[in-house]
Amino acid sequence: MRNFEELLLEAKKCGRKDLILAGADDVEALKAVEVAAELGLVRPVLVGNKELILNKLENFSLKDYELSEADSAEEIAEKSVMRSKPVINKILMKGSIKTAYLLKAVLNKEWGLRTGNLLSHVVAADIEGYDRLLFITDGGMVIKPSIEEKVQIIENAVSLAFSIGIETPKVACVTAVEVINPSIPETLDCAILSKMNQRGQIKGCKVEGPLGLDYALSEFAAKIKKVEGDVAGKADILLVPDINSGNFLGKSVEYFAGGKIAGLIMGAMVPIIIVSRADKSESKLASILLAIVNSKGGKEYA
Amino acid sequence: MRNFEELLLEAKKCGRKDLILAGADDVEALKAVEVAAELGLVRPVLVGNKELILNKLENFSLKDYELSEADSAEEIAEKSVMRSKPVINKILMKGSIKTAYLLKAVLNKEWGLRTGNLLSHVVAADIEGYDRLLFITDGGMVIKPSIEEKVQIIENAVSLAFSIGIETPKVACVTAVEVINPSIPETLDCAILSKMNQRGQIKGCKVEGPLGLDYALSEFAAKIKKVEGDVAGKADILLVPDINSGNFLGKSVEYFAGGKIAGLIMGAMVPIIIVSRADKSESKLASILLAIVNSKGGKEYA
Repeated sequence: MRNFEELLLEAKKCGRKDLILAGADDVEALKAVEVAAELGLVRPVLVGNKELILNKLENFSLKDYELSEADSAEEIAEKSVMRSKPVINKILMKGSIKTAYLLKAVLNKEWGLRTGNLLSHVVAADIEGYDRLLFITDGGMVIKPSIEEKVQIIENAVSLAFSIGIETPKVACVTAVEVINPSIPETLDCAILSKMNQRGQIKGCKVEGPLGLDYALSEFAAKIKKVEGDVAGKADILLVPDINSGNFLGKSVEYFAGGKIAGLIMGAMVPIIIVSRADKSESKLASILLAIVNSKGGKEYA
Repeated sequence: MRNFEELLLEAKKCGRKDLILAGADDVEALKAVEVAAELGLVRPVLVGNKELILNKLENFSLKDYELSEADSAEEIAEKSVMRSKPVINKILMKGSIKTAYLLKAVLNKEWGLRTGNLLSHVVAADIEGYDRLLFITDGGMVIKPSIEEKVQIIENAVSLAFSIGIETPKVACVTAVEVINPSIPETLDCAILSKMNQRGQIKGCKVEGPLGLDYALSEFAAKIKKVEGDVAGKADILLVPDINSGNFLGKSVEYFAGGKIAGLIMGAMVPIIIVSRADKSESKLASILLAIVNSKGGKEYA
């Protein structure tokens, strides 16, 4: 898939999804949901205080929606999570409640949406000049992942890449350098992850690292420095060492390259959308599209 | 200064500089030096094995140069450093010898080019859509700087920004978030550095942080999230938490944004240029231009 236009076409093939909006009295979230609803892609399930929601809806043209009343943040979070089950054709989106409340409910051991995996954040980037969407992870959720956590972060991103049609995603573990250097411990993790992949301990993808960003993305650069393998120059997924580096990389797409990004929290039984006020409207919509494609038939989570 | 075209105009006003090339039998370095020499900006001082250099020069049209014979890497490094003194109108560039040899000589306590400061790497980025050059530091030298080292990294970048005419550079200490969060220790450093600046312990600039990349660069984003101050949305210098995050950011300029970068090692008595084979030729020339402007009259290092 080359860009977000193609993502929209793909989303249109997925059938209408229930989009559960936790804390639906949120103008910014409603704007994005309205666009997706008008495109026939989602049926909004608005969870929250009825009066507040109806008040906000006066400025919207949403018609076909379901309203689920809940007042406290805890109640909104719980109802939203319960309404996301069975998980087939569901997507969950944060509205006015704080992220922490929503994720606490998602992670509830009895009635939450846990899978075996860690929750992690994946950005999909649509950048001019690239023939494919690039995934960047994790610049939004896990602060400084351990090796075990990096494995799960890779698995979550691979599952997302798979849902847009990439059969064997190429994962570049990126650091500042290609040399495995004990003074830069992040390079050691990259080497370990590459080897784990080679030994079949990380499946469904090709993992290579440490790679500099240039060698991950540019076949020309990889050739000059004789960095070999299937991933160099052709990465689909960039695994970054920590939240700061991943966050910068995602934002550089928008603020340096004038590109577009979408983001999802992966690792739960349904894709979770958390948008920020500063996100551009096209970015919010793209996040919903990504969630739609990822929730296709719900079978990835069976 | 808005871009590298203006940097070239400024470099042309600086008078011809001696460019000392350590290990001059290096085709890639020679290419960049040749362009700068043809523009009348530098007079090359070629240090290294005479035979090897003359052999390489057969493919170049360099005429007005000085040749300084030296054979071992140690000898080349020492001669190059000695030839860089007195430091007025000198710039030092790595050729075929390994970086470690050159920097060891630069840091020699008796005859090196030490100042009180740490050596650190600064990237200058010329990105479409920005009305100014952006500096990113340190994505190339100091792996995981302490607070004290970050102060010196800021000072080095400020000195460089000053030499292109920015009187009071705006320094954004960037992290993934704006909230000061003990779980992300990098945010604590940012808060401390901001306060040190406010107390006059870091001079000649305005330091603000923690800031996300969006709030550092976009006045629109800063306004939405009500991030205030002189730096938000207007940063000249991005101070990053570690080498990986800085390296990604610099490379994202080239590989995401199609922009141009130049790089210098700052903190010694002369600016030091280290280019890599994978660098684009315009990037290598821009690094020389930056060094020229920074070495102006040598007075910054008096």
